[in-house]
Amino acid sequence: MKSLIPIDKLQIKNSIKLDSGEYIDSCEVAFKTYGTLNKKKTNAILVCHALSGDQFCSDINPITKKQGWWNVLIGPGKVIDTNIFFVICSNVLGGCMGSTGPSSINPQTKTNYGLKFPVITISDMVKVQEKLVSALGIKKLFAVIGGSMGGMQTLEWATKFSNKVNVAIPIATSYRHSAQNIAFHEIGRQAIMADPVWKKGNYYKTRKGPIGGLSVARMIAHITYLSELALQRKFGRNLQNSDFFSFNFDTDFQIESYLKHQGSSFVERFDANSYLYITKAMDYFDLSVKKGGLSKVFKNSNVNFCFFSFTSDWLFPTSETKTIIKSLNSSNAMVSFVEVKTDKGHDAFLLEEPEFHATLKGFIQGQIGKHEI
Amino acid sequence: MKSLIPIDKLQIKNSIKLDSGEYIDSCEVAFKTYGTLNKKKTNAILVCHALSGDQFCSDINPITKKQGWWNVLIGPGKVIDTNIFFVICSNVLGGCMGSTGPSSINPQTKTNYGLKFPVITISDMVKVQEKLVSALGIKKLFAVIGGSMGGMQTLEWATKFSNKVNVAIPIATSYRHSAQNIAFHEIGRQAIMADPVWKKGNYYKTRKGPIGGLSVARMIAHITYLSELALQRKFGRNLQNSDFFSFNFDTDFQIESYLKHQGSSFVERFDANSYLYITKAMDYFDLSVKKGGLSKVFKNSNVNFCFFSFTSDWLFPTSETKTIIKSLNSSNAMVSFVEVKTDKGHDAFLLEEPEFHATLKGFIQGQIGKHEI
Repeated sequence: MKSLIPIDKLQIKNSIKLDSGEYIDSCEVAFKTYGTLNKKKTNAILVCHALSGDQFCSDINPITKKQGWWNVLIGPGKVIDTNIFFVICSNVLGGCMGSTGPSSINPQTKTNYGLKFPVITISDMVKVQEKLVSALGIKKLFAVIGGSMGGMQTLEWATKFSNKVNVAIPIATSYRHSAQNIAFHEIGRQAIMADPVWKKGNYYKTRKGPIGGLSVARMIAHITYLSELALQRKFGRNLQNSDFFSFNFDTDFQIESYLKHQGSSFVERFDANSYLYITKAMDYFDLSVKKGGLSKVFKNSNVNFCFFSFTSDWLFPTSETKTIIKSLNSSNAMVSFVEVKTDKGHDAFLLEEPEFHATLKGFIQGQIGKHEI
Repeated sequence: MKSLIPIDKLQIKNSIKLDSGEYIDSCEVAFKTYGTLNKKKTNAILVCHALSGDQFCSDINPITKKQGWWNVLIGPGKVIDTNIFFVICSNVLGGCMGSTGPSSINPQTKTNYGLKFPVITISDMVKVQEKLVSALGIKKLFAVIGGSMGGMQTLEWATKFSNKVNVAIPIATSYRHSAQNIAFHEIGRQAIMADPVWKKGNYYKTRKGPIGGLSVARMIAHITYLSELALQRKFGRNLQNSDFFSFNFDTDFQIESYLKHQGSSFVERFDANSYLYITKAMDYFDLSVKKGGLSKVFKNSNVNFCFFSFTSDWLFPTSETKTIIKSLNSSNAMVSFVEVKTDKGHDAFLLEEPEFHATLKGFIQGQIGKHEI
């Protein structure tokens, strides 16, 4: 993603050992902050983005000129109030909005990494975030929050760096990617890798990358973000242009047009190799295989948890959240859990959801009393 | 699909007017029969196949050398007993197992139709089946039965030719394709059309068709045929080859390997253009827009209906079946309905499902008493 807009970056000079056993040198983290860090540096909230997100979680995204992906939630006077909190959001390792990823230049070869970029995990992403938080002089985060893959990072923070987090708010997420979720991701990857422009990841010299494959991958994923009910309500069988069927293979239904738009706009802002790496990291995520099982992972945790799930989210259904909550309760952890009733599916965490926002606001305000800021 | 194995075919000499307004000339219907037609020609059951099916519903498929797709259900002494019934199954119009479709030679141009083949509907498929049934000298079918797209054809028979059907058994189907179902189909079509080998449908001179795109389309569809629970039970997060992650983009999980196998074996036996045409026909299917609404479609119907749905089928959920049953009941039609409890998802209609098979057997035996055979 080339841009003339200056992006805040931290250069990490020490090499980082990844879960694969490989090392990454001279890693850059692109980040954005909102609000002001207080003197005691106790008011920082780390916001973790999802698969297709970036560091521009509030205000206007300077690249796309659209609202930041969580602008409904984050800003002055909002649920995550930047008059009170210092919000940090960084582009994940492997991403394509300024942080080091497969589209970055490999300092050793002076060409784009491509598939030479090491395969990363959610834990690797979190390791890099922790370097950023430390570099900002923050010893303990007031909170870590994120939905979907952002929720995975939040959970990883609460286990890997539990002494550096007061509050963890995982939303619409799970302790591990399910077989069905892996299946959807793998098909997206297959669509990208089947695109002849992909060329085993070496497409950076072509004008456009494997946009056909990436577009199909995005369309597949997009269906999983919406509920069947929401699709039926929003689009049903409404036709796009005419009163009757076209009897050809152009667009007949509004839902087709909507999906094609989702695909074609995504390829403008996302790198196909980043899509491969980030989906793989999500597929690998499984807290239940760490430290001998889920019930042991959070043992003696001092983190205050608040989980949110959404009734019509079939990608990360409530049942997954309940499994982790059971384990947390058996570890005597401090856990709140809210299942929000909505027909908007997985996407609900990004949307105007009054019940979700009101409950989250109440929880955060309650935590302000518990932890000095 | 070229083959040295002789395939039974009926040549339809009269041209057929399609729903699009176009005509198709010299249409061929490939079919297969099992059992013996009785003297009164009253013991015929028409079996309608689903999207990826063919006429070989029982016994061994002579092309693939595997069991016919409904061999669990159809054969001597089985639920659909070929010692009693004469079973007819034909490859749908637009298909690629001998019936006229986009891969057939256009008699006017002497080359493959490709996208010159007219876009067809479920109703068009049924018109062609009716010609076959008539040509076999059958005035009234004992029953029409089918699952998924086969269920759509069954419903179409029960409306379009209700005087030629005693019994209709629609299974795991709906009166119309939902927005979510259209979405999944459209992505499959996009994957095929994004494959550069596809060349707007003119790929028949290349050694292999757009197998990359078709494989992705099949993989997408295949996920929708299985329930999340079945995927978790069968595959979970089991790894394919090793004790730990590969940290590359080869196959890590068993579910990935399974899907790739589904994709690669499908492209051996299916034509990509047929996939476009048949999915489009399914998307167009909507009984509720005919004759002024679903409640009027079946008015004064003398057909005996028995519907089956499966609890974990999220492609054609029970709620869809209930909608049509409500309309049928309000039309005072003869309707039975069984929701079978299973975790096997949409695929359950093709599998060993004792409750489904026992109930279907009982229903068919009951109908033998009602209709002279």
